[in-house]
Amino acid sequence: MRNIVIFGAGKSTAYLLNYFVVHAVDQLLHIQVIDRDFRSIPETIKESKHVTLIKLDIFQIEDVQKYISNSAIVVSMLPARLHIHIAKLCVTHKRHLVTASYISDEMMALDAAVKENGLVFMNEIGLDPGLDHMSAMREIDSIRDNGGKMLLFESFCGGLVAPESDTNLWNYKFTWNPRNVVLAGQGGAAKFIQEGTYKYIPYHKLFRRTEFLQIKDYGSFEAYANRDSLKYRSVYGLDDVLTLYRGTMRRVGFSRAWNLFVQLGLTDDSFQIENSEGMSYRNFLNLFLAYSPTDSVELKLRHYLKIDQDDIVWQKLVELGLFDDFRKIKTQSGTPAQILQEILEASWSLASHDKDMIVMYHKFGYEKDGEKAQLDTSMVVIGENQTYTAMAKTVGLPVAIATLLILNKKITTPGVQLPIHKEVYSKVLEELEDHNILFTTQKTAYMGYNPDNVFG
Amino acid sequence: MRNIVIFGAGKSTAYLLNYFVVHAVDQLLHIQVIDRDFRSIPETIKESKHVTLIKLDIFQIEDVQKYISNSAIVVSMLPARLHIHIAKLCVTHKRHLVTASYISDEMMALDAAVKENGLVFMNEIGLDPGLDHMSAMREIDSIRDNGGKMLLFESFCGGLVAPESDTNLWNYKFTWNPRNVVLAGQGGAAKFIQEGTYKYIPYHKLFRRTEFLQIKDYGSFEAYANRDSLKYRSVYGLDDVLTLYRGTMRRVGFSRAWNLFVQLGLTDDSFQIENSEGMSYRNFLNLFLAYSPTDSVELKLRHYLKIDQDDIVWQKLVELGLFDDFRKIKTQSGTPAQILQEILEASWSLASHDKDMIVMYHKFGYEKDGEKAQLDTSMVVIGENQTYTAMAKTVGLPVAIATLLILNKKITTPGVQLPIHKEVYSKVLEELEDHNILFTTQKTAYMGYNPDNVFG
Repeated sequence: MRNIVIFGAGKSTAYLLNYFVVHAVDQLLHIQVIDRDFRSIPETIKESKHVTLIKLDIFQIEDVQKYISNSAIVVSMLPARLHIHIAKLCVTHKRHLVTASYISDEMMALDAAVKENGLVFMNEIGLDPGLDHMSAMREIDSIRDNGGKMLLFESFCGGLVAPESDTNLWNYKFTWNPRNVVLAGQGGAAKFIQEGTYKYIPYHKLFRRTEFLQIKDYGSFEAYANRDSLKYRSVYGLDDVLTLYRGTMRRVGFSRAWNLFVQLGLTDDSFQIENSEGMSYRNFLNLFLAYSPTDSVELKLRHYLKIDQDDIVWQKLVELGLFDDFRKIKTQSGTPAQILQEILEASWSLASHDKDMIVMYHKFGYEKDGEKAQLDTSMVVIGENQTYTAMAKTVGLPVAIATLLILNKKITTPGVQLPIHKEVYSKVLEELEDHNILFTTQKTAYMGYNPDNVFG
Repeated sequence: MRNIVIFGAGKSTAYLLNYFVVHAVDQLLHIQVIDRDFRSIPETIKESKHVTLIKLDIFQIEDVQKYISNSAIVVSMLPARLHIHIAKLCVTHKRHLVTASYISDEMMALDAAVKENGLVFMNEIGLDPGLDHMSAMREIDSIRDNGGKMLLFESFCGGLVAPESDTNLWNYKFTWNPRNVVLAGQGGAAKFIQEGTYKYIPYHKLFRRTEFLQIKDYGSFEAYANRDSLKYRSVYGLDDVLTLYRGTMRRVGFSRAWNLFVQLGLTDDSFQIENSEGMSYRNFLNLFLAYSPTDSVELKLRHYLKIDQDDIVWQKLVELGLFDDFRKIKTQSGTPAQILQEILEASWSLASHDKDMIVMYHKFGYEKDGEKAQLDTSMVVIGENQTYTAMAKTVGLPVAIATLLILNKKITTPGVQLPIHKEVYSKVLEELEDHNILFTTQKTAYMGYNPDNVFG
């Protein structure tokens, strides 16, 4: 029997654990889940004889060491900052490690020791980062293997609500951490490359310079630029590429409405509003509008942000109850961003029957034999319910599959790494297809960076 | 003979030193100026027998102590962060100290020791801070002494170019630190109170919500809000006031054009443009516009920021040479803000014959015997030339006058302080009138916070 030790039993672990349970008999696995709270784990998994739940603080170092030393491989689904604690113990006890998080500098510093011990520390193998790396590198490697030269790479991903649960004017609900959504894009200008030129978008223009995308059977989407599109330029071997852009996907129209919050200053997380508790939504809005003895909040807002009386964005604000006097803020001394989050959560939380949706889209432009061509590839995954979500599936299954591949010595290259090599992505992506995580690829005429797809 | 020791011989010291020279004989003064560079000091002062220039690093502590212990009083015109070094030595040697800078926490921490030794550490006694405190508190105390209750206080100040030197479309030249002008308003939302309600303006809207002001004989001005208008609320005793607003003055139209830089992201100081050296102004601008294979920088900019073809703001951009291919950036790996500063300095530097102008404007709203009334007070100072500037006059003379008043025991209340008490402001303001630094006061009908004066 081979022990798989999993630290962290959070929201994205249902598919992960289920995968191991399904393979427990034929693969001789026993699953040990270490956390202080197991409420996110489905009952069927809790009751499985192949699973042991171990209530333990991860800083009870002696017990943790005992489980690691008795394990065949370790998976960490803890918050990203805690991985390093587990990683160091994995080096000490010579155990492989798998995480879905970005490689931190601390983690990278273990690389020499990891290699020396012949260990595989596989990171960034969830959805984003994870599926994005694997699906991109599969096409990029294939283009190069066939003699092509990469010219353009654009990559988009979004966590959205499934079409059958898409019931509000924003075409959006929170399917993941709401705070990240409210603060998205802050902290500096977005940076990317278009046709050989660096381009910069300041935060207050980010949601006005979106790109449009179409996905067959799923309709239209838009995307705003991620802060640093150049992060994987060298890692992907794209130093000479003319266009490099990464973005976050939303349904069309979301960004134009969201921009109103940005313009007002409602997404600001840098100062507190002392008397926020009990304040009406309407008065909160009015804090960001000039005083008038006569004019309404509505007229001041329309004038300030130049909103036509028949503009659909207005209805989106009304839908949130922003003009209501009877709706009161509960947050004490909140920042504008915290209060906005409270207001949005009241409207955008998933109902018990709602399903989520993950969308990923890549564009690959290249030149071969003097001709330019383009490949577009996309993936859509719909969740089953609120436990078996598309997010949990696309994060958890790649982790689970990679874990078993490493355990069975199908992935053997040692070191602290991310899944950009064929040894990893080909096997993981192939098995994901059995779980209906499929990328559809379509060859199109090379469009280069297409300004007609851009707003602003 | 009484030694006045002055640390720092920078730009704002011409009037300061001249004041002491003029009074040297009748007041038995000798002036010792300590710095490493005396180029900013006019020749007439350098050659005065009442002045000794001492070339000394202020961290040569033994020599510095010698001069302080032999002094009658110390003035620090050093960069603000260096005052504390001098201040501690003044405590040790029991000498009074005068500075024109904001009171730092470190400086405030000396208060007990300063009082114990019967010393006066007078700070914030330049222009802004300085003249603003004194001219405001004179009116506020007067209103209260006459039984009035303060309702509204608005205060505005600007360092501008004199009308006779106002030769560009922006009606602006750099008369002080250009970097502060480029970064003005950054670092968080502007916060103030209008008619009893807190109001917040995010940076990207700051230059679209200006107030308008008229000054007799000098025409129209506008002002954008300072970051924290509430800083002196308690210090001035205005905790119950309904409206509290502080702003920076510009000529009308400046802010609407400046907003274009903000919208583009040109004032961003948080990242570097690696290849900036040698880049044309036009290409720099294009970094902040979307790529197009066909459209010009001009059309992209007009479309992006919705600039009509006959809008005067366009000529303001043209005047700076922003669309020129032949103008090249010299800054290496500059931030957008540093590069913008270089571009602006090429157009907005004072010519040798140019004069500067300082403008200050306060509004005081109050209630007395059940009736509301308002006082407006304003000051305009025009520089004589590029040595005897209005900035040097309005910063240096209050410092000089206060120094002599302290030395002559006309100001005696000990402690680390700013000039908000009658003992200080009445004498300083009175003597400033002899130097033509005059406040004109006008009683008007109470307007409260007047939305008609507000844009946006």
